[in-house]
Amino acid sequence: MATVGFIGLGQMGQPMATNLAKGGHTLRVHDVSAEAVASMVANGAVAASSPAEAAGGADFVVTMLPNGALVRETLMGENGVATTLSKDALVIDMSTVHPLETDAMIADMAKLGFSMMEAPVGRTSDHAIAGTLLVLAGGTKEQIAKAQPLFDLMGSDTVDAGGPGKGIRVKIINNYMSIALNTLSAEAVALSEAIGLEFDAAMSVMSGTPAGKGHFTTTWPNKVLAGDLSPAFMIDHAHKDLGIALDLANQVGVPMPMGAASRETYNIARSAGRGRQDWSAVLEQLRALSGLETKAK
Amino acid sequence: MATVGFIGLGQMGQPMATNLAKGGHTLRVHDVSAEAVASMVANGAVAASSPAEAAGGADFVVTMLPNGALVRETLMGENGVATTLSKDALVIDMSTVHPLETDAMIADMAKLGFSMMEAPVGRTSDHAIAGTLLVLAGGTKEQIAKAQPLFDLMGSDTVDAGGPGKGIRVKIINNYMSIALNTLSAEAVALSEAIGLEFDAAMSVMSGTPAGKGHFTTTWPNKVLAGDLSPAFMIDHAHKDLGIALDLANQVGVPMPMGAASRETYNIARSAGRGRQDWSAVLEQLRALSGLETKAK
Amino acid sequence: MATVGFIGLGQMGQPMATNLAKGGHTLRVHDVSAEAVASMVANGAVAASSPAEAAGGADFVVTMLPNGALVRETLMGENGVATTLSKDALVIDMSTVHPLETDAMIADMAKLGFSMMEAPVGRTSDHAIAGTLLVLAGGTKEQIAKAQPLFDLMGSDTVDAGGPGKGIRVKIINNYMSIALNTLSAEAVALSEAIGLEFDAAMSVMSGTPAGKGHFTTTWPNKVLAGDLSPAFMIDHAHKDLGIALDLANQVGVPMPMGAASRETYNIARSAGRGRQDWSAVLEQLRALSGLETKAK
Amino acid sequence: MATVGFIGLGQMGQPMATNLAKGGHTLRVHDVSAEAVASMVANGAVAASSPAEAAGGADFVVTMLPNGALVRETLMGENGVATTLSKDALVIDMSTVHPLETDAMIADMAKLGFSMMEAPVGRTSDHAIAGTLLVLAGGTKEQIAKAQPLFDLMGSDTVDAGGPGKGIRVKIINNYMSIALNTLSAEAVALSEAIGLEFDAAMSVMSGTPAGKGHFTTTWPNKVLAGDLSPAFMIDHAHKDLGIALDLANQVGVPMPMGAASRETYNIARSAGRGRQDWSAVLEQLRALSGLETKAK
Repeated sequence: MATVGFIGLGQMGQPMATNLAKGGHTLRVHDVSAEAVASMVANGAVAASSPAEAAGGADFVVTMLPNGALVRETLMGENGVATTLSKDALVIDMSTVHPLETDAMIADMAKLGFSMMEAPVGRTSDHAIAGTLLVLAGGTKEQIAKAQPLFDLMGSDTVDAGGPGKGIRVKIINNYMSIALNTLSAEAVALSEAIGLEFDAAMSVMSGTPAGKGHFTTTWPNKVLAGDLSPAFMIDHAHKDLGIALDLANQVGVPMPMGAASRETYNIARSAGRGRQDWSAVLEQLRALSGLETKAK
Repeated sequence: MATVGFIGLGQMGQPMATNLAKGGHTLRVHDVSAEAVASMVANGAVAASSPAEAAGGADFVVTMLPNGALVRETLMGENGVATTLSKDALVIDMSTVHPLETDAMIADMAKLGFSMMEAPVGRTSDHAIAGTLLVLAGGTKEQIAKAQPLFDLMGSDTVDAGGPGKGIRVKIINNYMSIALNTLSAEAVALSEAIGLEFDAAMSVMSGTPAGKGHFTTTWPNKVLAGDLSPAFMIDHAHKDLGIALDLANQVGVPMPMGAASRETYNIARSAGRGRQDWSAVLEQLRALSGLETKAK
Repeated sequence: MATVGFIGLGQMGQPMATNLAKGGHTLRVHDVSAEAVASMVANGAVAASSPAEAAGGADFVVTMLPNGALVRETLMGENGVATTLSKDALVIDMSTVHPLETDAMIADMAKLGFSMMEAPVGRTSDHAIAGTLLVLAGGTKEQIAKAQPLFDLMGSDTVDAGGPGKGIRVKIINNYMSIALNTLSAEAVALSEAIGLEFDAAMSVMSGTPAGKGHFTTTWPNKVLAGDLSPAFMIDHAHKDLGIALDLANQVGVPMPMGAASRETYNIARSAGRGRQDWSAVLEQLRALSGLETKAK
Repeated sequence: MATVGFIGLGQMGQPMATNLAKGGHTLRVHDVSAEAVASMVANGAVAASSPAEAAGGADFVVTMLPNGALVRETLMGENGVATTLSKDALVIDMSTVHPLETDAMIADMAKLGFSMMEAPVGRTSDHAIAGTLLVLAGGTKEQIAKAQPLFDLMGSDTVDAGGPGKGIRVKIINNYMSIALNTLSAEAVALSEAIGLEFDAAMSVMSGTPAGKGHFTTTWPNKVLAGDLSPAFMIDHAHKDLGIALDLANQVGVPMPMGAASRETYNIARSAGRGRQDWSAVLEQLRALSGLETKAK
């Protein structure tokens, strides 16, 4: 069993730390909230009055904080982790922060001689309590192997994201997609309600199409992901149908800003000569607009 | 077996008509392309020089045309279907048109004494050839029952969308969602590539979260759809994470107009006092912006 | 003095027709509102029960209607203008309609042997009453010269937009710019209020910069319009400053969807290698995205 | 004549510092670029190897740096200005930074006993060279009065923005408006070119309307700014005309993401019951969406 300095006892951090303690590890906890610390101490943890104190003698330091500036301050600021940490310890940042901040912190800690990885988590506070989080591990094989016993107490699934900094990258991409998809879904359902369509009817259809199943596993694999842009459904037709939906929405008073933005991307794709390509070619178009390498033949 | 006037022999119409003919029905076909008509005639169909001629003596008239104006002209214009159609026949528009046009055409045909329903289709031209389309039937129970044998030849699944005009509504909503989701997916993957994340790593994570599975069957049913806005994941946090992704995208040069539009919807939701509600509450926010009834308690 | 068939007596049409009558012309008026017609008849106009009747014996027919479909029906539909109009008369559509509809109507009327031009108007109903509208004339030199005496009664300024169809094009561009600018201005002022800035202070600064004066006559003429993209203010810096404003707006709860959309255009421009070009180079970028010829060296 | 510590000798900073030196002040200059420092030393300035050294003995410290983090580091970091600065000196940040950073820095410097104001500038590097910048002064009356002789050497106009933090706020609002307007203007001109309209014809019309003159001094003063929402031009009509422009743009392949975003704001306004209000009422709508007080009766 190890000694774990755990810094950040919020809605997610507290149950995560609790699960580590239940697993038999010695916890040294720090938080701005004295109440949160006291609650952990009542369950056997050792209170630390600073990050430095939490890190002293620890095998692992876990940070679970609201933003990257706080993580940096906690690690390398005054009375920070770096002032007391053993060179044999492993720092694991499980916060959701800006990936470029993560890269910089790992590099700066390395310059100071410390080993640091990131492991942001997926799912909700209910999963944190149940110890069934999704752990998105960004680190070397060795770091991940070393941290795995801790991950297994906090989560039920660990994904090796492919190296240092890749865990937070997967997290940001996944969150981007799910958070933006959430408002897009709301646009579709609001329009559905506005035109008198029963939700169940709409859902039953969408659950069997890319509308509900997404494109990654349905329309894309044999098309743009395979480098084939021959049309199963043409960009011209997608653009036309989207125009109908937006016209309808503007008649019945449902704002659909994401749909409106999407239409302009198809508009750009058509002007770039992709009108008769498969609709999955919008990925190629985004690559081109981003200065990335396009891949289809 | 019935006589079917089939008007519109394009990429979708031709295989659909062919499947009706294979099923034993007598086809009377019309199209602006003499070539398309000839090809059907070679397989036993009767050529019709006008919609009127196609409709003469028909039990069903099926239209599969590029837009609503053409459907209207075909039905009620000069030499249109209405000039020769039997009052016992059923008109089935399978085109993708504006729902308000569909409503108006059904009403106008009814005034002339004709029975009309709509049944736009889902899936692709490959499915049209295979006779495995998804038929989104908008009509009375009687109309759908009458048309069912035809639908069974053209498709493998028929959805009763809930009444006249509902078939095209489901189609438009489904297309809206899948077409806009397509460009959103492209934004996520372009960002993923720009920050050096392997597609497989990103996909494997997203396939297990709402990013890949959508919200309709995951995060929404026990929350906004059940009238419960207590937070599993707060709008404030979704807004923050989306901000990180957009900042990153703007640093690495990936345009994400849909994500940018989404962020402003969260921004609106926060100013409306929803920051600490569950992220599914964006549906409530969209309802409010649309002048629709909000539903959560 | 001429005989003028005037069709469409709404908020704009009625005062326009009144000014023609005051100028000594004989008016033959038609509208769906009997009340509107009666009001004109009380002032000496002749009531016409159909467009055809209004056009009979007229030297000019003026249409001022809500949309292009109505104009087309009025001109070429049942009991339409074309059924009675003299081949020597001039039809002037002053409605705001879709430019491609205008093109088609002028062409279709020409096929029938009739001379038609368009002349949509700028300014408000107050100007219509005062006879000080801005007339955006789209027609041949001959048509405009012939219509000028009428324009002079309805408006104080006539712009020769450069040929048939150009009047409605100028109108649409001008309206696009002013209507979209209106919501952009609202975003700026809402943000200004949210951060406690006095409107007068903001206005006094903006009135002296492109924010208030626009770019067409300030930053563009010597840069992108002259083919010079050397930076007075770099796209990279514009992108950065816009990011600050959007971050601030998202912190204080002001939705700025247009600003968010704008940022993505700068994002695209940077990925296209324009970061160190003058900010006016966004015009070049838009041209490129539209498949138009770029012009700067 | 005063001693001025000047930190940040970039495209703007160098000519600004040069004009202070020409005015007779003693300059102590610091920059990361040794070359930039050397160039100033050649003209009589004293080189400072750190912000602390630049600030030692100075009456004023001027900072002109790329972002707020650098300004903060320069002022309060290691070897920063605060380590040597006299309590009688005045710090003037002329950089464009995030207003909330400005607020925090002014407050933190005050806690340390230092007087700080901000004075970001408008116009271009040509104006910096000519000493004709626009100075947006945010500070107390006393601070501005003290700094005025310096401002008069660097700029031709000083605006008292209304207090500490207001200078940077005006700057951000002004930049927001001009930078976003730039891309909107590009959308309008690209559409104009795509539909074959001569730029001069479009410009001549727009120069006389709100499209070219803006709304602040034309359509708004007697309407929304006076609390009067009776329509000179209705939101319903603005929404319709914008729809025509977007439809046209999507037909001819000109992407207009800002116009598309604007349309959704009108869409929201209509659903909020503002369709028959004056178009300037979009400001009221934005206020409502932002949780700000609405003002019209």
